[in-house]
Amino acid sequence: MSLRSEIFEQSDVLRAAQSENTRIAAEARDILTGPEIGHVLIAARGTSDNAARYAKYAWGTKLSMPVTLAAPSLYTKYQQPPDLSAAAVVGISQSGQSPDLLSVLAEGRSQGRPTIAITNDPGSPMADIADLVVPLLAGPERSVAATKTYTASLLAIAMIASDLPDLDAIPDSVMGALDAEPAIIDAAQRTGPMPNAVILGRGYNRSTAFEWALKLQEMAYVLANPFSTADFAHGPFAVLEQDFPLLAIAPAGAMADDDLTLVRRARDEGDARITLLTNIDVPDLPTVNLPMIEEWLSPIMFIVAAQLFTLHAATLAGVDPETPRGLKKVTRTT
Amino acid sequence: MSLRSEIFEQSDVLRAAQSENTRIAAEARDILTGPEIGHVLIAARGTSDNAARYAKYAWGTKLSMPVTLAAPSLYTKYQQPPDLSAAAVVGISQSGQSPDLLSVLAEGRSQGRPTIAITNDPGSPMADIADLVVPLLAGPERSVAATKTYTASLLAIAMIASDLPDLDAIPDSVMGALDAEPAIIDAAQRTGPMPNAVILGRGYNRSTAFEWALKLQEMAYVLANPFSTADFAHGPFAVLEQDFPLLAIAPAGAMADDDLTLVRRARDEGDARITLLTNIDVPDLPTVNLPMIEEWLSPIMFIVAAQLFTLHAATLAGVDPETPRGLKKVTRTT
Repeated sequence: MSLRSEIFEQSDVLRAAQSENTRIAAEARDILTGPEIGHVLIAARGTSDNAARYAKYAWGTKLSMPVTLAAPSLYTKYQQPPDLSAAAVVGISQSGQSPDLLSVLAEGRSQGRPTIAITNDPGSPMADIADLVVPLLAGPERSVAATKTYTASLLAIAMIASDLPDLDAIPDSVMGALDAEPAIIDAAQRTGPMPNAVILGRGYNRSTAFEWALKLQEMAYVLANPFSTADFAHGPFAVLEQDFPLLAIAPAGAMADDDLTLVRRARDEGDARITLLTNIDVPDLPTVNLPMIEEWLSPIMFIVAAQLFTLHAATLAGVDPETPRGLKKVTRTT
Repeated sequence: MSLRSEIFEQSDVLRAAQSENTRIAAEARDILTGPEIGHVLIAARGTSDNAARYAKYAWGTKLSMPVTLAAPSLYTKYQQPPDLSAAAVVGISQSGQSPDLLSVLAEGRSQGRPTIAITNDPGSPMADIADLVVPLLAGPERSVAATKTYTASLLAIAMIASDLPDLDAIPDSVMGALDAEPAIIDAAQRTGPMPNAVILGRGYNRSTAFEWALKLQEMAYVLANPFSTADFAHGPFAVLEQDFPLLAIAPAGAMADDDLTLVRRARDEGDARITLLTNIDVPDLPTVNLPMIEEWLSPIMFIVAAQLFTLHAATLAGVDPETPRGLKKVTRTT
């Protein structure tokens, strides 16, 4: 049961990383806001790419930095890397091993740009290449599905974004999400079987929608489709007359009115089975109620609830999320 | 039948735009490669966001420019726009009306940055804000689902990327895709019903995978899930044991070996119903054979085949793609 225990470790992991990484996060912040930096280029894949989606908003609002997600194939398959002369280059990778991400950091270095590695392995090749290493300090992650390294990546990004005391609320909010497990189990049971699903989130929590979808794919074999709430309101809304789960993240904050309007519209016009993760009081919708925290930090707390939801959805579907068939297949063809 | 006729207009529309826009595309190229430009920030939504995905590769390889996709909510909901002092700002919008995209261009302008509008309406607010307007010249688009304005946007991006004679092959390649309609109808019939689907493409044709998925959502109410081929090989591969359509784009070029390896693996290990759009000879897979063209220009040709596939898939499913229920709902809540 390493997956479940790794999910439940997260409050402690985050508390420890928060106390350890203060100085190194400030160094990273100085690099990213240096006078010659016009944008931050992030190289990441999979779960770490969802952390990069969070950085786009967190560093956009807190550091005023435009964030560019790298297209690694420009550096590898096409061998035509762009001119990075205005960039700081950041790699995010649990293992620090992925060759295409190393290519992006190596290119940044060869163009004389500052490079930062956010990784759980300070002895990895990515850490070797980078000027500065922000360690995730999450301990070994044995499960195929990344959980604690994802929230540790979000925390590192948030700590680089700001040293405001706001961040002190993170570990307790995560504990609150873990304590909500009974309500989350109820929600998973109410949702029922899900061969497919739509996941909605916006702004800071666009990252949460994408990461929840990835967890559902990896752990429960659900063909989950993440959307920004803003995009879903257009063309994709048409699919809603089908009967499938609609899972949404609706934090207190700037997006709340729009998020709730769309979910209520889905309830009124479609056949979807709705579950809303929220920290707002919404008596007219099926919700899992979670702790209050600043919107910009809420993705760390919301994804923990989403991980638990996914774990129980997999178990209810008779799938063992500890041994996903996805990994075996990937391993076979490496 | 405006949708079908708009799809079939594309070869002529592209030929005309190509001859008209040479000078203006060169002006745009000069702006984007100016000495003080460190990256290009693109503001776009929906179909135009998929065109921006293409620009990330086309401008990355041909202009050596890193491309950043804007997060419009930083400018609107969160009201904390980033520092754009190294950016050129490009808006892509068929109508040139969307308020959130206008906010991004207006912010670029107020920060003294060069701005370009790629739009089908040179009298639109977006065109008014921009320093330079690249008109799509696609004529009025009456269908809800954008088709000719999408390929016209890709052409505009390609013309800004390069004035190589390679581009002259585009209209004929699109004509070749239109001529493949009988084979495309066969493929749609063979694919059969599709409540959901996975769409795979990589590199330049990551844009095609995302746009094909959006067309399937809008026109045929298919819960289509686009993936980069590189990302799908990891976690999401596990979902393949279900029986659903797997649609893939495999152009001749740098990605071909990886693309075909993954699709063959899906055939051997999963239960998916495969259709491959390709211009490579692949006798062992179910393909629609399309014209040869340089990989970097192939998204313009491939999406035309994908539009036709979607039109016929909708018709076979008894859905009228001319009057998608999505639009009515969006209109009601505007």
